[in-house]
Amino acid sequence: MNRSRLRNLGITIGEYPPGAHNAITDVPGIRVGQTTLIWDAPRIARTGVTIILPRANVWQDHCAAGSHRYNGNGEMTGTLWLEESGMLTTPIGLTNTHQVGIVRDTLAEYLCAQPGAHRWQLPVVAETYDGFLNDINAFHVQRAHVLEALANARDGAVDEGNVGGGTGMLTHGFKGGIGTSSRVAQIQGTPYTLGVLTQSNYGRQKHFTVKGVPVGNYFAESALDETARGSIIIIVATDAPLLPTQCRRLAQRAGVGLAKMGGHGENGSGDLFLAFATGNHFPNDAQQPSALTMLPHDQMNILFDATIEAVQEAILNALCAAETMTGLHGTAQALPLEVLVEALARYNRLA
Amino acid sequence: MNRSRLRNLGITIGEYPPGAHNAITDVPGIRVGQTTLIWDAPRIARTGVTIILPRANVWQDHCAAGSHRYNGNGEMTGTLWLEESGMLTTPIGLTNTHQVGIVRDTLAEYLCAQPGAHRWQLPVVAETYDGFLNDINAFHVQRAHVLEALANARDGAVDEGNVGGGTGMLTHGFKGGIGTSSRVAQIQGTPYTLGVLTQSNYGRQKHFTVKGVPVGNYFAESALDETARGSIIIIVATDAPLLPTQCRRLAQRAGVGLAKMGGHGENGSGDLFLAFATGNHFPNDAQQPSALTMLPHDQMNILFDATIEAVQEAILNALCAAETMTGLHGTAQALPLEVLVEALARYNRLA
Amino acid sequence: MNRSRLRNLGITIGEYPPGAHNAITDVPGIRVGQTTLIWDAPRIARTGVTIILPRANVWQDHCAAGSHRYNGNGEMTGTLWLEESGMLTTPIGLTNTHQVGIVRDTLAEYLCAQPGAHRWQLPVVAETYDGFLNDINAFHVQRAHVLEALANARDGAVDEGNVGGGTGMLTHGFKGGIGTSSRVAQIQGTPYTLGVLTQSNYGRQKHFTVKGVPVGNYFAESALDETARGSIIIIVATDAPLLPTQCRRLAQRAGVGLAKMGGHGENGSGDLFLAFATGNHFPNDAQQPSALTMLPHDQMNILFDATIEAVQEAILNALCAAETMTGLHGTAQALPLEVLVEALARYNRLA
Amino acid sequence: MNRSRLRNLGITIGEYPPGAHNAITDVPGIRVGQTTLIWDAPRIARTGVTIILPRANVWQDHCAAGSHRYNGNGEMTGTLWLEESGMLTTPIGLTNTHQVGIVRDTLAEYLCAQPGAHRWQLPVVAETYDGFLNDINAFHVQRAHVLEALANARDGAVDEGNVGGGTGMLTHGFKGGIGTSSRVAQIQGTPYTLGVLTQSNYGRQKHFTVKGVPVGNYFAESALDETARGSIIIIVATDAPLLPTQCRRLAQRAGVGLAKMGGHGENGSGDLFLAFATGNHFPNDAQQPSALTMLPHDQMNILFDATIEAVQEAILNALCAAETMTGLHGTAQALPLEVLVEALARYNRLA
Repeated sequence: MNRSRLRNLGITIGEYPPGAHNAITDVPGIRVGQTTLIWDAPRIARTGVTIILPRANVWQDHCAAGSHRYNGNGEMTGTLWLEESGMLTTPIGLTNTHQVGIVRDTLAEYLCAQPGAHRWQLPVVAETYDGFLNDINAFHVQRAHVLEALANARDGAVDEGNVGGGTGMLTHGFKGGIGTSSRVAQIQGTPYTLGVLTQSNYGRQKHFTVKGVPVGNYFAESALDETARGSIIIIVATDAPLLPTQCRRLAQRAGVGLAKMGGHGENGSGDLFLAFATGNHFPNDAQQPSALTMLPHDQMNILFDATIEAVQEAILNALCAAETMTGLHGTAQALPLEVLVEALARYNRLA
Repeated sequence: MNRSRLRNLGITIGEYPPGAHNAITDVPGIRVGQTTLIWDAPRIARTGVTIILPRANVWQDHCAAGSHRYNGNGEMTGTLWLEESGMLTTPIGLTNTHQVGIVRDTLAEYLCAQPGAHRWQLPVVAETYDGFLNDINAFHVQRAHVLEALANARDGAVDEGNVGGGTGMLTHGFKGGIGTSSRVAQIQGTPYTLGVLTQSNYGRQKHFTVKGVPVGNYFAESALDETARGSIIIIVATDAPLLPTQCRRLAQRAGVGLAKMGGHGENGSGDLFLAFATGNHFPNDAQQPSALTMLPHDQMNILFDATIEAVQEAILNALCAAETMTGLHGTAQALPLEVLVEALARYNRLA
Repeated sequence: MNRSRLRNLGITIGEYPPGAHNAITDVPGIRVGQTTLIWDAPRIARTGVTIILPRANVWQDHCAAGSHRYNGNGEMTGTLWLEESGMLTTPIGLTNTHQVGIVRDTLAEYLCAQPGAHRWQLPVVAETYDGFLNDINAFHVQRAHVLEALANARDGAVDEGNVGGGTGMLTHGFKGGIGTSSRVAQIQGTPYTLGVLTQSNYGRQKHFTVKGVPVGNYFAESALDETARGSIIIIVATDAPLLPTQCRRLAQRAGVGLAKMGGHGENGSGDLFLAFATGNHFPNDAQQPSALTMLPHDQMNILFDATIEAVQEAILNALCAAETMTGLHGTAQALPLEVLVEALARYNRLA
Repeated sequence: MNRSRLRNLGITIGEYPPGAHNAITDVPGIRVGQTTLIWDAPRIARTGVTIILPRANVWQDHCAAGSHRYNGNGEMTGTLWLEESGMLTTPIGLTNTHQVGIVRDTLAEYLCAQPGAHRWQLPVVAETYDGFLNDINAFHVQRAHVLEALANARDGAVDEGNVGGGTGMLTHGFKGGIGTSSRVAQIQGTPYTLGVLTQSNYGRQKHFTVKGVPVGNYFAESALDETARGSIIIIVATDAPLLPTQCRRLAQRAGVGLAKMGGHGENGSGDLFLAFATGNHFPNDAQQPSALTMLPHDQMNILFDATIEAVQEAILNALCAAETMTGLHGTAQALPLEVLVEALARYNRLA
């Protein structure tokens, strides 16, 4: 379904190799489901929902987690409990700004129906604004669409670009959307996988940078620039054995990758990051103390670097996959891949 | 509609006098609307929604605001932008745990239809859990109920107890719900009004304390104690000219009042506070710098004390107003007012 | 050395029993050292330093830790790393406001001389203001005094009142200082010890409350009230196996105890709390992941309650121990114990 | 005194022009004083202290301020009150890791001697670690050195490189130190000045990036790389009329500039930022509300970009100014400027 991926163009980011699918699903147990809503009548739909299932039964077997606010002009529900407890206890939903609620309530309904789930639920749902292409106040996303995304969640390759919550999103003046990437890194002889999934909808064209090359200057100026300044949600996952405190640190490092791309955390942008780690288990119904494992802080540097790399590649995968789309207020052009390659070649940045 | 209010029993809290209605609506411009859902078929409803409108057009003329997490086992949407910007830009909704979403999305829809509103909205909606009395997974609250609460918002006296978002709530083993109170305090010759509205659903009976009297010990032991440990949302408002930083400080003081009542911030409790100040204006569309006023920090102490007093009285007003209610899993008894009065009389705490 | 302790007066707080010494040192491995500086010439000294050693070699074998700001008009160094890492890596120093620096730098020097210590150190040192009794700008505390407190650190009973960092402190209009208390609580059959040590220098007389009794009204009005509004540092320690996230939650609960005493977090007050847990070990030089244990969040409630109890008793122990002291600007009266007992008897609050 | 500055090499950063001195002192009223300690006996000194005076009498006429923790392996005292109050009330000191205390206590002493100063002081002092070149545990910085830096504070050009607190610092494998830069930007027709001063001691050589060019790869590999990973303190100042909330946002944007340089917030790094704004006045002794002005949030983007630019240039100015230095454990090479220029020329990044 993807138009391309960054590596198909001969462009790599950083020093660590990706996992098998170069996707967040390379972290064992993670599944992604998406529902894409595209129609023109009675009102224009260019939106959807993306769900990340952290593991088979996250409502019983919680993950360590932490979050970071790079700029807070956005919404991510569930973070008050996530920060208080240090745990991710629900799937993660991504959708448009005005429909966080329906996704959140439907996840609560879904979770309460699962065996062993707690009787109240505080789902994590985040958003970016797709109102340029999508008739957002038509409220297209319905309960059934959320359940459909849950039902089609799977491991393996992840669709990117104009899919799920990313359907109507824009990035650095071009068509953005969903992107993903992963890294595998050895720490003291043990391989860990780290994956990133982003719903990318942020950035000015003039700040757009790839591997240090100011590529934004090489494209014709996008008419979208002023309207396109949106938001970005970044989800980081790893199978390393991290504590909540360490997940919060990892979430913050997503911002280093975003800064390198040209994300300045503009006032109108909701740049919200969440990191979770599946290497520890926090049983919902524990009575006795649980055994955990903690990667030494000093060895977080490798995961920091892997995050910084994967965030950049996930954003670029969204841009490479997304196709030109016309919607409510106009057209968002797909990123001209040949111009990107040419700009990087000129600066000797191809692999 | 209220069974009683605390002051009708001859019990007062603190040194500052209340405003005209002893309600959050004593702060000029604030309106409260509520929709109460009580029926038994096809599924039991004991729930609702309460809306606080901070001023006539808060979406254009924002208030200063800050929040505090006393314990985070709960949800309050909109706080990422509120904390980033220091502004309250939307009405505040209160409802049950699993329907934060429908209230939030409906507020977004409502706001987008107002003249001069921004094209995206991040509404503030908080919750407590009413699943003991209410069949919460029947998802009774609908879009129309939110619009109804918006439509019936008014100043003046506020219904308390089993109304709005507080319909099915419990407190210290008894029937809780919505409560409000206010204080008027002079600061350097200028009178300021401070109001509190709470959706009260927290606390163990054994910790229940009124004016220092351990009244929890004077009641027959409630069968609800173990199931009743819920949450509390506290909204503090004032017309004093505060900066965002100062609102955050005020929000935190709500916890001092809660602690004096016996709220220990238990693990299962979502004890979330928000304070806003209408004494400053943050225009949505300002191009030039805005003129603001700032109460000196040293004079916050009076507002701190007023908050601590009004929080206690608002919780007690919820308990005094709430009537015995039978619902999905059993019955919550109204607080026996005569026992309360007797306990306070024994300790010489009546006015 | 203590004038009295609260329990000697027949007053107990809460439901859990204290440990052997009713002191923070009841948590195995914790030692406390104090240096008290009292002289009248050439300039008046009523100050000192108190050191808490969390365990034998905390610089190699770190503890889990978290902090909380109830009101931030004060200083606690070292918290940036403590919050980033979730670890307490140094002893904790308590002293007067203007000499945090000498205590901090001396601890850094001391730590660098220990075998196996890291080459840079970020010591935790907090303060309250003793300038009413102490000629604070004479800078009496010297390097040797810090080393002396380190050298005399011991387990067992802890001197309270006018000692160490608490020498010149005031509380609710009376002479305050150092106080400590502990609790032992069973969680799922395992006994845990929780201890508190406070340097108490806060509060208005009119807010002074003991077990719900407004005792401040029973004493003659203190002339100190307006000048006395200072700060309070509260250190909570436990041998329970907590994660950093859980320590932060515990630290926040110190505020519930403080609120019950009448601590309103006034503007001029630096009310800073730190909690650490020795039940987990974070080796400084770990290369491989460490094994940890985590008490389930749901069972934190017992530790929350134990903290709330011990904080109140530690403050009252400071007041009961402290003797009348005359210093730079006047005299601080010892709390009249017979009036306290009489007030509690009148309200039937004696054991 | 400076070896060079970045612009002398024909390299510029960003789109906004610098102020008259391309220094933090371009913000009217700001003065900088520095004491540099370099000697070899009896123990090697390569350290010092840098003081920033925000305005003539900041202890009476406070500034708006906010801080940000990019990675917390470091110290910045005074931030608890700065975050609580939103104000900067003292000068800012920069020194080595183990002597934060002497600088802080001396500032407290100095401040208490100023007319109209509050009776207690909570100075802001931050640090980075110079133990590779400096015999840090000799504790060279003394009270007199702090007073000397205060005495020599002046506006105009600022010495950079191996001076003041930056004397013994390292950056990306080369000799670092103090650097500064400024920007002037028009917002709705009003020019505002924004300045940055950094004590730069962070980063791995392999991450070193200038204007997107991976210059770290063009230098011979530094032997310092593994030992050099230190910290960076960044101070941002502006004369724009900002609220505390907005200063905190500005402080966070320093991290975007740092990320673009190759600062990954490594575990061992204390990357701490503070932003203050002189455009508003918070009088220490105000009784009545103060009049303030607030730049609209939407127009913060220009200040965000100016910060991102000036942070990069300040770091590079430190590197360009710093000369090769030999000290306790070896030699830190000055950045080879001709290699830098050549690398940028190759990528067409010269002005």
